[in-house]
Amino acid sequence: MQYWRRIVATLVLAVAVLTSASASERKIVWKLAMTWGGTLHPFTTSVESMAKMVETMSDGNFIIRIDSANRHKSPFGVLDMVKAGQYEMAHSASYYWKGKDVNLLPFTSMPFGMTAPEQYAWFYYGGGMELMQKAYAPHNMYSFPGGNTGAQMGGWFRKEIKTLEDLKGLKMRIPGFAGEVLAELGTVVTNIAPGELYTALERGTIDALEWVGPGMDIKLGFHKVAPYYYTGWHEPATELQYLVNQKAYEALPEKYKEMLRVAMRVAAYDMYALNYHESSEAWAQIATEFPHIKIETFSPEIMNAMKAANQKLLKEMSDANPLFKEAMESQAQYLKKVRVWTKMSDFDYLKDNL
Amino acid sequence: MQYWRRIVATLVLAVAVLTSASASERKIVWKLAMTWGGTLHPFTTSVESMAKMVETMSDGNFIIRIDSANRHKSPFGVLDMVKAGQYEMAHSASYYWKGKDVNLLPFTSMPFGMTAPEQYAWFYYGGGMELMQKAYAPHNMYSFPGGNTGAQMGGWFRKEIKTLEDLKGLKMRIPGFAGEVLAELGTVVTNIAPGELYTALERGTIDALEWVGPGMDIKLGFHKVAPYYYTGWHEPATELQYLVNQKAYEALPEKYKEMLRVAMRVAAYDMYALNYHESSEAWAQIATEFPHIKIETFSPEIMNAMKAANQKLLKEMSDANPLFKEAMESQAQYLKKVRVWTKMSDFDYLKDNL
Repeated sequence: MQYWRRIVATLVLAVAVLTSASASERKIVWKLAMTWGGTLHPFTTSVESMAKMVETMSDGNFIIRIDSANRHKSPFGVLDMVKAGQYEMAHSASYYWKGKDVNLLPFTSMPFGMTAPEQYAWFYYGGGMELMQKAYAPHNMYSFPGGNTGAQMGGWFRKEIKTLEDLKGLKMRIPGFAGEVLAELGTVVTNIAPGELYTALERGTIDALEWVGPGMDIKLGFHKVAPYYYTGWHEPATELQYLVNQKAYEALPEKYKEMLRVAMRVAAYDMYALNYHESSEAWAQIATEFPHIKIETFSPEIMNAMKAANQKLLKEMSDANPLFKEAMESQAQYLKKVRVWTKMSDFDYLKDNL
Repeated sequence: MQYWRRIVATLVLAVAVLTSASASERKIVWKLAMTWGGTLHPFTTSVESMAKMVETMSDGNFIIRIDSANRHKSPFGVLDMVKAGQYEMAHSASYYWKGKDVNLLPFTSMPFGMTAPEQYAWFYYGGGMELMQKAYAPHNMYSFPGGNTGAQMGGWFRKEIKTLEDLKGLKMRIPGFAGEVLAELGTVVTNIAPGELYTALERGTIDALEWVGPGMDIKLGFHKVAPYYYTGWHEPATELQYLVNQKAYEALPEKYKEMLRVAMRVAAYDMYALNYHESSEAWAQIATEFPHIKIETFSPEIMNAMKAANQKLLKEMSDANPLFKEAMESQAQYLKKVRVWTKMSDFDYLKDNL
């Protein structure tokens, strides 16, 4: 009897120890709300690849369920939903929150701002991440880069834009801060749902529109109805954002925190490479099938007017918001140095190899 | 007695099940050999960050021990050591193996080739990774991108290079394939150990040398003794490589395979961003402290001669090696499309914003 008792005691102890180790592997299930509908490739597929990496690395123990806007019905409510803890995380773009909190505007892309390699250098090594956390802290969340579209094109125009006069009264769909800049120049900025854009452009309800770049634009068919494709100025590197509820993140075991951080980071970089690839392929296809389409760049007169309007608006916003001002100054100072390097490295190489 | 026996049987079963689950968590320890000495930042620190990510994500159960060349004493032996399974993995640059297997040359950087964003798009979405695995398969290994320096500078010169005549007889340290291109133009290409480079340049033993870019060059002090810094042509985006023994990789549990893949990928992208940042900072410092240093670009006459020599050498190698030819054709075809996109996106934006 003594013998059996000792064995039982030992086994009970062993089971207790192993069960507690196993309990730390208990499945964690998070919910992520996207601003996007379910099929907005490559935004949605990038989020899916992030969740898949976390699932595989955690051996199926950390699952992130993705709700598209088709399901949660609130594309621009995701900030509030993560803040309230209704979703543990979201995928969106920081510049959508300008109306709620202007301090969140600077982390997606700014007119006449940094290119993607410059911006990644700023985020990760030039103080950008720290400023982004400072701006998101009042919303009880962390924010992480969520994928880059690369330089966005200036938009599809039915008619050539030669002078500032041509912009006056022009009806254009261009959302956000870039729209405010053009409004300063007399453009009539309109807001039209994505599903109605093609018809609006075809029928002349609008004269021009801005979407993303060839890779994403080609699916909407704008090249069939507007023969002028202008190069960009307003979003030289549009970085999307992951938003993560602070309390939910801090409650994760260290290994899951790291899996999430690393998976978001690689999915973001990958989206930049994928957008680069798809824009290159899509433009080659458009140029072959629609050889009459012209790539144009706005004239120096127009560019200078845009820059002046941009500076005027930024100054107004900076004067009223110290944290916004701090982010703008950080970007301006960084850009001053990094653009010199961009010129002597990639730019000088490219100008002899176009 | 019956009662005790049933309890014991149940407990024995429970322990067996839990012990087997726990056994799959047995610690895995790998060894990684670097081509670099122990302090070649940011190459070595990038490898360290990769290993740290794997360690944290695996909760300390997958450890990668790093040996620098100071320890294993064989910087250019790492390919053979991984092939033989002496090390599970290595960190090096694929173009170092040109002499052993020319098919491995195309995966680091080629003269007049792709920029970093173009090359990442090619690797991950344009067929580059598949070609790289095909080239490494005969060596029983997989290869993964291992970090990018960005565009490398053309080098530090004691005298200005105005004509092709100035290159003839010029003594320059420029290793690898770029050195062969310059040798075609009459440059006397020499090989000097890194530790002796500064003195050789200072004393005029050599007239010029190529290293990396401002971020890594500044530590070696070349700017103190050579006032002409030429822009690059020979390595527009130098991607290092991880080499992984195929058998060792395939023996890993799926979750560890994924942690390794993801950690290598993010460390590689991060190194590109970090090099961008450090080159920008270092050049700002050099330009401030040594304002006499001139950034120069080789003349069209010199560039065209380099391009012709490059094409001649590539053709000879392509004719003799079908797999090398396949990789060169893939890069050339990709470049043709992607450079058009680079021009209309980043280049056209930059030319109005320098």
